[in-house]
Amino acid sequence: MTAEIYDMARRARDAGRALGALSGAVRAAALREMAAALRAHTAEIQRANAADLADAEAGGLSGPLVQRLRLSERTLCSMHDRLIAVAALPDPLGVISNGHVRPSGLRVMRVSVPLGVIGIIYESRPNVTTDAAAVCVKSGNAVILRGGSEALRTNTLLAELMAAAAAAAGVPADAVQTVRTPDRAAVGALLQLDRFIDVIIPRGGQSLIARIAAESRIPVIKHYDGICHQYIAADADLEMAVAVVVNSKCEKVEVCNALETLLVDAGAAERVLPALAAALRAQGVELRGDARARAVVPMDAATEDDWSTEYLAPILAVRVVDGVEAAITHITTYGSGHTDGIITGSMALADRFVAGVDAASVLVNASTRLSGGGDYGLGAVVGISTDKLHARGPVGPDELTCRKWVAYGAGHLRK
Amino acid sequence: MTAEIYDMARRARDAGRALGALSGAVRAAALREMAAALRAHTAEIQRANAADLADAEAGGLSGPLVQRLRLSERTLCSMHDRLIAVAALPDPLGVISNGHVRPSGLRVMRVSVPLGVIGIIYESRPNVTTDAAAVCVKSGNAVILRGGSEALRTNTLLAELMAAAAAAAGVPADAVQTVRTPDRAAVGALLQLDRFIDVIIPRGGQSLIARIAAESRIPVIKHYDGICHQYIAADADLEMAVAVVVNSKCEKVEVCNALETLLVDAGAAERVLPALAAALRAQGVELRGDARARAVVPMDAATEDDWSTEYLAPILAVRVVDGVEAAITHITTYGSGHTDGIITGSMALADRFVAGVDAASVLVNASTRLSGGGDYGLGAVVGISTDKLHARGPVGPDELTCRKWVAYGAGHLRK
Repeated sequence: MTAEIYDMARRARDAGRALGALSGAVRAAALREMAAALRAHTAEIQRANAADLADAEAGGLSGPLVQRLRLSERTLCSMHDRLIAVAALPDPLGVISNGHVRPSGLRVMRVSVPLGVIGIIYESRPNVTTDAAAVCVKSGNAVILRGGSEALRTNTLLAELMAAAAAAAGVPADAVQTVRTPDRAAVGALLQLDRFIDVIIPRGGQSLIARIAAESRIPVIKHYDGICHQYIAADADLEMAVAVVVNSKCEKVEVCNALETLLVDAGAAERVLPALAAALRAQGVELRGDARARAVVPMDAATEDDWSTEYLAPILAVRVVDGVEAAITHITTYGSGHTDGIITGSMALADRFVAGVDAASVLVNASTRLSGGGDYGLGAVVGISTDKLHARGPVGPDELTCRKWVAYGAGHLRK
Repeated sequence: MTAEIYDMARRARDAGRALGALSGAVRAAALREMAAALRAHTAEIQRANAADLADAEAGGLSGPLVQRLRLSERTLCSMHDRLIAVAALPDPLGVISNGHVRPSGLRVMRVSVPLGVIGIIYESRPNVTTDAAAVCVKSGNAVILRGGSEALRTNTLLAELMAAAAAAAGVPADAVQTVRTPDRAAVGALLQLDRFIDVIIPRGGQSLIARIAAESRIPVIKHYDGICHQYIAADADLEMAVAVVVNSKCEKVEVCNALETLLVDAGAAERVLPALAAALRAQGVELRGDARARAVVPMDAATEDDWSTEYLAPILAVRVVDGVEAAITHITTYGSGHTDGIITGSMALADRFVAGVDAASVLVNASTRLSGGGDYGLGAVVGISTDKLHARGPVGPDELTCRKWVAYGAGHLRK
């Protein structure tokens, strides 16, 4: 099997080189073919997905995991739309930056080029298969996909469809490959092939990511927890605060950019906390507060651990803080640098919060759920990185490129 | 000692936050103060350096290492000039990119911010102390410097001078710190502090870098070998080819962007190889060629190992190849993705070479020695990265920043 993985990676390397040399028009056309294939084969995909779901339920997979595995009509539709959206993005390759003529006459510039081969290791959600294929093909990278064994039929079919559709537009067939064996040793073999694979992106729980980062000889772009905050400033509009906090927490509780801790300014607590608590409880959210929050609205007591817990569940930690500096200090101490927001009408407070919070995304008067590829205009992403190096925040086509220096001289020498 | 290193890193984290909040004007002024301090304390620096040199020679350090340790008048002068050049660069912080208003009205943008704290672990050359301090202060990052024990007096004095000069301009004194103990365990302790330090940049031999990359919990920007090539196309101008190849190989043999393998097109071999060989031998360069090169000019035979050896010495491997595709294949097979060049008058050949060679720097009609911070206009760099992720090629102030997403809404929700 190691030989099989080696061969797959070598073919991906060669396919990546050919893919990176194709024009942006061809790569965009391939994405439109991929979208059309998704639409044309809906029934077939749903049959494969139903078979995976039946096995998962028979095998006793938990409710949320089954939920993630399911490809509803709506999910398929948005997968299709993201392929089209990525196709329509500007070409991330061949972008010239830092171009200038040196005093010596040497013409120097940086040109964006593909990274080469991307390995994506993910759990459950089969939409990652098409999103990752879209982002990789758009950016001229070959991709090796390794989904969870519970979604094997769905992922394999999706990857085959994407590869065939891309090939119809002129993309090498090996540009989109999938590891078909559920054997875990395949991942171990993959992580050693730094000769062929340029970056590994794991999508899944903390333990999966930590294990892969520890084991990999290949650089890893990591997607760790989102301990996301909203800070309600003293002047915050009540209606906006309630709407944004409820959306941040409840729109989808199990995702990394869902709200986990609410910071309410002491100057706003009595005015906004009762309405906020009522609205959140109406959505089934359990509140855990510090003493000052509980003095305004009765709720369970938060412990020190609550401030650094990513619940991914209908639970929200609530703390009353004194001013924007205290909010920044709390976020700096307990946050994970993923997504943090402020609700205020004050430009000075917004500016201070944006400057003071060191996170991949800082939002002003907006739901934390908006920090992501779609809402930032990236079409689709392969995840939201919590690394600072290379890719910070949503990982779209631009993040899968690097910049090569090119210099043109006329016999220029080092003096 | 672990406690001491921990405290140093924690203070660096705090200093970095304060430094990152200073205006570009203050950071530039700090760099000019640092340059002035270097000039004002020349005699003192030279005394410290002389003491290090005396110990090194007494201790039997080899000639090239002593050479690297020596701070000549000329070296000090160029260290000073690089501080001034970095001061004059545009501010790398607060640069807004990807700014746009989404259809929903959400205003989205990316803003460049410092990484935080940079750890630099280096051998011999004391100029790294001032170059790294310059690049880090310019980009709003605190730096922890750990030089070689043989340069301890020189590096400690330089770092103290830089810290004091920066502090005089308003930069926190802990923004530039140096590990004073020669104890190797200090490095081990440093590499565990991912809580405070954001990136580690090792400068030195392959084994130092590999050891640090293996041991570090902190992301590492790596500077591996430069197996650099020049390809002499069939149409190459003889005079230019000789001048560029001699400069690429001989201007400084022990550095990563020095030429290691010369590829001569079969259509140019008889015309250019004799003159090239004569010019190189006049500079004391030993040639090792394949059979076809030796058929034109007698020289030692190259073995398979020669193609993947970074000599860092007056030795050059020579191979005759059939056309630009063969040159690209050779470079892809044996190169290290550092710096590769072509000598040609043909735009088609230059374009094909630039597109086909996957390296941090690709040069046309220019010496490989020009791939670097100074000649690319970066003022100073902390090294030349061979990584593809984050920083590829010279690591200047821009490479020590990351981009934070900031979004401004008016109560925007995820639909």
